[in-house]
Amino acid sequence: MTSRFGTSFSISTFGESHGHSVGVIVDGCPPRLDVDIDRIQQDLDRRRPGQSKLVTQRKEGDEIQILSGLHDNTTTGTPIAMVVKNKDQNPGAYDHLKDVYRPSHADFTYDAKYGVRDHRGGGRSSARETIGRVAAGAIARQLLETGPGIEVLGWVSQVHTIDAEIDPSSVSLQDVESTPTRCPDPAAAEAMTDAIKTARSNGDSLGGVVTVVARNMVAGLGEPIFDRLEADLAKAMLSLPAAKGFDVGSGFAGTRLTGLAHNDPFAPGPIGRPVTTTNHSGGVQGGISNGSDIICRVAFKPTATISSNQQTVTTANEATELAAKGRHDPCVLPRAVPIVEAMMLLVLADHWLRQQATSVLDS
Amino acid sequence: MTSRFGTSFSISTFGESHGHSVGVIVDGCPPRLDVDIDRIQQDLDRRRPGQSKLVTQRKEGDEIQILSGLHDNTTTGTPIAMVVKNKDQNPGAYDHLKDVYRPSHADFTYDAKYGVRDHRGGGRSSARETIGRVAAGAIARQLLETGPGIEVLGWVSQVHTIDAEIDPSSVSLQDVESTPTRCPDPAAAEAMTDAIKTARSNGDSLGGVVTVVARNMVAGLGEPIFDRLEADLAKAMLSLPAAKGFDVGSGFAGTRLTGLAHNDPFAPGPIGRPVTTTNHSGGVQGGISNGSDIICRVAFKPTATISSNQQTVTTANEATELAAKGRHDPCVLPRAVPIVEAMMLLVLADHWLRQQATSVLDS
Amino acid sequence: MTSRFGTSFSISTFGESHGHSVGVIVDGCPPRLDVDIDRIQQDLDRRRPGQSKLVTQRKEGDEIQILSGLHDNTTTGTPIAMVVKNKDQNPGAYDHLKDVYRPSHADFTYDAKYGVRDHRGGGRSSARETIGRVAAGAIARQLLETGPGIEVLGWVSQVHTIDAEIDPSSVSLQDVESTPTRCPDPAAAEAMTDAIKTARSNGDSLGGVVTVVARNMVAGLGEPIFDRLEADLAKAMLSLPAAKGFDVGSGFAGTRLTGLAHNDPFAPGPIGRPVTTTNHSGGVQGGISNGSDIICRVAFKPTATISSNQQTVTTANEATELAAKGRHDPCVLPRAVPIVEAMMLLVLADHWLRQQATSVLDS
Amino acid sequence: MTSRFGTSFSISTFGESHGHSVGVIVDGCPPRLDVDIDRIQQDLDRRRPGQSKLVTQRKEGDEIQILSGLHDNTTTGTPIAMVVKNKDQNPGAYDHLKDVYRPSHADFTYDAKYGVRDHRGGGRSSARETIGRVAAGAIARQLLETGPGIEVLGWVSQVHTIDAEIDPSSVSLQDVESTPTRCPDPAAAEAMTDAIKTARSNGDSLGGVVTVVARNMVAGLGEPIFDRLEADLAKAMLSLPAAKGFDVGSGFAGTRLTGLAHNDPFAPGPIGRPVTTTNHSGGVQGGISNGSDIICRVAFKPTATISSNQQTVTTANEATELAAKGRHDPCVLPRAVPIVEAMMLLVLADHWLRQQATSVLDS
Repeated sequence: MTSRFGTSFSISTFGESHGHSVGVIVDGCPPRLDVDIDRIQQDLDRRRPGQSKLVTQRKEGDEIQILSGLHDNTTTGTPIAMVVKNKDQNPGAYDHLKDVYRPSHADFTYDAKYGVRDHRGGGRSSARETIGRVAAGAIARQLLETGPGIEVLGWVSQVHTIDAEIDPSSVSLQDVESTPTRCPDPAAAEAMTDAIKTARSNGDSLGGVVTVVARNMVAGLGEPIFDRLEADLAKAMLSLPAAKGFDVGSGFAGTRLTGLAHNDPFAPGPIGRPVTTTNHSGGVQGGISNGSDIICRVAFKPTATISSNQQTVTTANEATELAAKGRHDPCVLPRAVPIVEAMMLLVLADHWLRQQATSVLDS
Repeated sequence: MTSRFGTSFSISTFGESHGHSVGVIVDGCPPRLDVDIDRIQQDLDRRRPGQSKLVTQRKEGDEIQILSGLHDNTTTGTPIAMVVKNKDQNPGAYDHLKDVYRPSHADFTYDAKYGVRDHRGGGRSSARETIGRVAAGAIARQLLETGPGIEVLGWVSQVHTIDAEIDPSSVSLQDVESTPTRCPDPAAAEAMTDAIKTARSNGDSLGGVVTVVARNMVAGLGEPIFDRLEADLAKAMLSLPAAKGFDVGSGFAGTRLTGLAHNDPFAPGPIGRPVTTTNHSGGVQGGISNGSDIICRVAFKPTATISSNQQTVTTANEATELAAKGRHDPCVLPRAVPIVEAMMLLVLADHWLRQQATSVLDS
Repeated sequence: MTSRFGTSFSISTFGESHGHSVGVIVDGCPPRLDVDIDRIQQDLDRRRPGQSKLVTQRKEGDEIQILSGLHDNTTTGTPIAMVVKNKDQNPGAYDHLKDVYRPSHADFTYDAKYGVRDHRGGGRSSARETIGRVAAGAIARQLLETGPGIEVLGWVSQVHTIDAEIDPSSVSLQDVESTPTRCPDPAAAEAMTDAIKTARSNGDSLGGVVTVVARNMVAGLGEPIFDRLEADLAKAMLSLPAAKGFDVGSGFAGTRLTGLAHNDPFAPGPIGRPVTTTNHSGGVQGGISNGSDIICRVAFKPTATISSNQQTVTTANEATELAAKGRHDPCVLPRAVPIVEAMMLLVLADHWLRQQATSVLDS
Repeated sequence: MTSRFGTSFSISTFGESHGHSVGVIVDGCPPRLDVDIDRIQQDLDRRRPGQSKLVTQRKEGDEIQILSGLHDNTTTGTPIAMVVKNKDQNPGAYDHLKDVYRPSHADFTYDAKYGVRDHRGGGRSSARETIGRVAAGAIARQLLETGPGIEVLGWVSQVHTIDAEIDPSSVSLQDVESTPTRCPDPAAAEAMTDAIKTARSNGDSLGGVVTVVARNMVAGLGEPIFDRLEADLAKAMLSLPAAKGFDVGSGFAGTRLTGLAHNDPFAPGPIGRPVTTTNHSGGVQGGISNGSDIICRVAFKPTATISSNQQTVTTANEATELAAKGRHDPCVLPRAVPIVEAMMLLVLADHWLRQQATSVLDS
């Protein structure tokens, strides 16, 4: 089950960086959802290479093609298959990587696992795999809007040592998209731009943090025990290339508070249900949404591909040196935003559908 | 699938805090594993209440009973069912919680999800549910020792603002068990003990971080894309009560390094395979183990149950005040250690079994 | 996943014939279902040994004990664990089977698969495993009654060469329970009784067919393609000990009709939907229920345990002879009826819950 | 999970009859399997329309295109995506079916389930969906040959009232392919050909039975309890369009034998393991393969599409008449053979991979 995610709303991705195409099957999307295909493309455009000078210059239009599951632009309840062809292929460009393991990449571990690997552009471990996630997430986004009305938005909140200040309850998509960094704090965004450009010119790379929020949440989503909402979100985020950490609500910082400061007091709410007056819980209590905003942070390590010389080893276990050539991202954060959003959308759509079976005896 | 975890080595837990018993079914454990039942009990004893003055004084022996799956203390390949009876029940002690929502607990969210809840001791959301995980983890531990030889050890690395210094490659179980805090840094352990006692006497509580390491790892475990080793570990850890964050290797701290500093150089290794000279990756690259130690950190919020007065709301949405009575942990960290270990053991056992199908054509 | 069945309404069974107990966890039962525990016991009593002279005389009360998941006899949405203790154990009675393979039993195949087996009473392959299925099915029965109003009833329609004539649309539970054969055709029942007694006195055994019907069905249950309703029913039934065949509607007999005779014409129905004027489809078309009765047949081979001498082989691959001693069923059909019902109930409850996610956008 | 099948070796299919394409993702195929793509095409050619005068004349080359998962014609362990484009589309040809329910088709049940359907050529319920199964099965075939050496072969054993006599242990692919009926009994094949032609000219259709055998089996495959080998085979076969019954070994006929006649005696076998001297069990005992040939039968109803007039109902619940126009199969049996083989191949490949985890502690 290596390439499948989700239970009721599930996706299966396929494809290698320099194979014919990459794609996804979405299984379990409810019927009679009107799908705006342009909006799928918009999310893909936020993810695709070449969109700004801060990211890799690989030339890919990443145009989505829908093979099944829609009839007159409406879902029929059957699997929705979507593909994007790989166009800017230059397989020969990777010949020098056939017999060498790039540091902190998946080259060695794929060989250790499979005894074989497609060395062209990282093969299956390429971030191009996330195209299918973003396309599927764009459908989940439309489902969540049509159904419970949940909205999901992410942004870059940290690059290297530069921290942004953003109010998760009010930041807008327009704010996020107003700079190529996708950091809606203008001063921080400018500093991030400079830092990324400097890193690139130094043959170096940067990491950082994406924050993502779900607003207008409904209470009651998430399964207690193993499929807790935060557990499924954690898995979703740590399944992304280069992700090394996840927290929700107060997260790691909250471990330095005491219980008195950390607990979220309840107050009577307007629709007969309590609301919390603070949100250290990040919208999830006991693994289940409480109706407050869900706020998560995802840590991405600095890009492994750098153009400086590095010590490494050949597939024959002999020492060698390597410097990356060609196109790559000096910092994945700006392009990671729509991918992180997609993963949260997929988790929420799945749990919203799962909850239907739980609430079936509601009168 | 709320209460099931794992694919090839899977567990299903059941039971409420004040019901008849709590327990687990382990499904998929290979046959012909000799099981030392005393060692299962030892892990449960590290988790159980009343083991020291730092933890809750609920009186539970937590004696494991095995209902199926073993024959002459050997696994037969059939499901292993294990139960622990709940003994120290005082159901009347919870009458005052029937109509009130405790802040930062799962009371409200269970009601929002299910429209009903067992209010006695948190019902299903009680940490007693983790007994089944620890018992199952103890079997996974013996499987991993008998099979690939992997060992897993956890410890408390932070309580509130007190940080410990521990070398993950050399710390021993004896070091960890030498203080009731399960922090193997003696100076930090003493400060933690004081802090926990102070918090308790203040009607307050503390959170912190558990670090866990897998040593003597084999390379090649973990499925790329969704069931990455770090993704399954993240889910495992965030599925624990009070867990709010997870990272692996350099984690959140690594986002402040550059790629040149962060990448793990490869050097020729002794058995025809490369080794890394640093371990910022935390033993996982591209979702797959590379043979280095796997090092993870799990953030636990301060215990929600405190004896100070708090603002909250009744189930009728009216404001009220609440102060916890009776037995509870002022800091869950010491008891969390065997639980965190169990989750890592379950993930590794599962992926070790899954890898058998992948490597079937190895000659 | 050897011992787990179902997706949204799922069960996990455990236990060996001569271990401590057998049992089941039901996961996914919706909250706020009032459960009548006496009715669970009633279904178990229909399955248990010793209920008549036609079945095995092993003495087991098979009293159900509920460990979790209910609060004040109402489901809470958490896993429902149920166990039955094994009482009439006489482990020494099986010593002569330790080193020999009983013909057409699972002794050899368990050894081939696991390299070890619990030889006492068939171990895990014993029909005692079905206790958990029947208990879980009894909860599914109450869910289907409370929810969509579906009812399920089975009966013995054939023993050896004796065929009964029964009208699936009108036969009642009382009819079925009126004879120890559970065949509601009195003449056939009497002949079956004689045949079973004769077989027993000959040291022989008989097989036959159980027919099962779901009435008051709703249309729209079942997932097209792999999880078709008839596919999941087929799997459910073939997962039973001694089951060797399954058909639905006209089944194997229908292959001898032509399309003109076999097709079920539609006629305008009373509630704005078509009805079929015949039911060769057995209530399922394209894998999805059409609202007509679902009618299935399950073939059970003659009991493998017979008291006559048989040629067989030791675990050391040497020829030997074997004759069964002690208690066994000369014909499993009467006791198979509640088990077959349970499997159909589990499949229908599961698909009814699954359908909730599909119909979520219904206005 | 409507469109996914299998656990360790799993497939996900997608596509509608008159959409862009149909296809499949194979997930879990072990790495380093050399794949002969021509042999995939050969199995598809046995399934495709227009191959003889006995089947539908829809013009489809059904050329397979591989999008991912192979590198230099070797599996890499990543998902293998395969598609076939739909070419002979004439969407207007289905306008008359938009508002009417064809008897014994899935038109009404899809509407009952989804509230929407793609009426063109049956949409998702078309047998074109099975292209993905056959392509995936062709890979499973090569895996089983390379690995355990298992071979699978199917044939038509009955059409309408014509029964063939075939020896499952010796019949060859050449025998099967020597007539367009795929019935290797020449006299029966001739009678079947005549019967099918007569049915077509009468505006009628025929059903029948496909028998399939797995030879050179290994013992130990299949999981006891729910994922029994025969249970998974039953599900696999009943998931096929028009399938209404399944049996294994003696099946329904065996219910008319007594235990003495039915039990398969063991005799000492040549490799230190017993063999059975008869095979009423059909190669499976207790849900697990015993090394003998696995023999199954699958009942297919007469084709629902016939050109004679039939009574039916419109989507507005009004009576109407309908006669099929255009291209369809008067008897699906000949084309069903490679599909039935594919389903058995998929089940066996899956269980062979699953067994690797079970046998991991074998020394």
